[in-house]
Amino acid sequence: MKLNERGLLIVLSGPSGVGKGTVRKALFDLEGHDLVYSTSMTTRPRREGEVEGVDYYFVSREEFEQRIRDDAFLEWAEFVGHYYGTPRDKVDEQLKQGKEVVLEIEVQGALQVREKAKDGVFIFIAPPNREALYRRLLRRGTESGDTIQKRMDKAEREFPLAHKYDYIVVNDEVTNAADRVLAIIRAEHARTERAIHKYKELLGVDENE
Amino acid sequence: MKLNERGLLIVLSGPSGVGKGTVRKALFDLEGHDLVYSTSMTTRPRREGEVEGVDYYFVSREEFEQRIRDDAFLEWAEFVGHYYGTPRDKVDEQLKQGKEVVLEIEVQGALQVREKAKDGVFIFIAPPNREALYRRLLRRGTESGDTIQKRMDKAEREFPLAHKYDYIVVNDEVTNAADRVLAIIRAEHARTERAIHKYKELLGVDENE
Repeated sequence: MKLNERGLLIVLSGPSGVGKGTVRKALFDLEGHDLVYSTSMTTRPRREGEVEGVDYYFVSREEFEQRIRDDAFLEWAEFVGHYYGTPRDKVDEQLKQGKEVVLEIEVQGALQVREKAKDGVFIFIAPPNREALYRRLLRRGTESGDTIQKRMDKAEREFPLAHKYDYIVVNDEVTNAADRVLAIIRAEHARTERAIHKYKELLGVDENE
Repeated sequence: MKLNERGLLIVLSGPSGVGKGTVRKALFDLEGHDLVYSTSMTTRPRREGEVEGVDYYFVSREEFEQRIRDDAFLEWAEFVGHYYGTPRDKVDEQLKQGKEVVLEIEVQGALQVREKAKDGVFIFIAPPNREALYRRLLRRGTESGDTIQKRMDKAEREFPLAHKYDYIVVNDEVTNAADRVLAIIRAEHARTERAIHKYKELLGVDENE
């Protein structure tokens, strides 16, 4: 029995090249969970084959900017002329349905989310060492040396931010890392601050005791 | 890879009749862990077949009382003329070896331990409802109605103490409960305060950043 029935907002983050996406995919492949992936909102035009509400929520610039003014995003950014953001209300709806909403996001975005979603679970995916990260960045092969150097510099600035997260999971072996993330999700549901309300209800213990 | 190499002190507690012992046994039957059971120290005479250091550490009253004065117990109590306690140094030795030391203990004892072992993981095992606990207490069959009534009264006083624990796990189905405890152990090793030291070592990030 799960004492906390509300879903958890799981923020998977870490420097680029650490393999956040691979860990997320392996996590979704595991059994025994009710995970969903958070859908972003964007002002970029819909491409052929993209489905509204699945790939993105597509909105106009005006609507997006109104939502920024309404503080309706967990995080947002502008990227080559288009806005991208995580709509608070959509995430909240899924959490209420008991789904664990997974946000895979860069370090700066994650720290933005932390400000607005205090009860989220923030997981920093770390490389087992510097070389592993560098090798991953180089292996992509499609980027110029300059771009790779920039990513390495960015990673260096992000490494010391791990202490702002709740958990640090090493991506040495992707299924190990995914298993550990799933264990974190299971454990977090049992944390006293999340479980105490239902517990008191079950046992009829007075809220004010 | 586990970022925290020191073992965890896992305190399994809850009212009598909740099935702490059954959960602990199911936990030890699971795979993929390095759990040990903490061995108590006692002044009661050794019984036939009991092994020093396995069943108990057997010591004299003088030695036990000296250890009390030295604050050498995580918790201790006197019960029908004999002392029983959990020796701090023995637990610490096992934690240093990377073993998870499991203490299955009553609520009052657990709260004593909490004072001395701030980094322990305190798990309150809860019944799914009052009736389940009562039925377990009655099923034992060997106790008088009076004793059972006393245990029920004690459980009533202990229910409101759950909020002093880190986690609340419902023992609705014993393997579910044991699975969740194992998830808690895995998750706790990744908690930032336990993992950050090794993480900084791996990445050569400055301790003071």
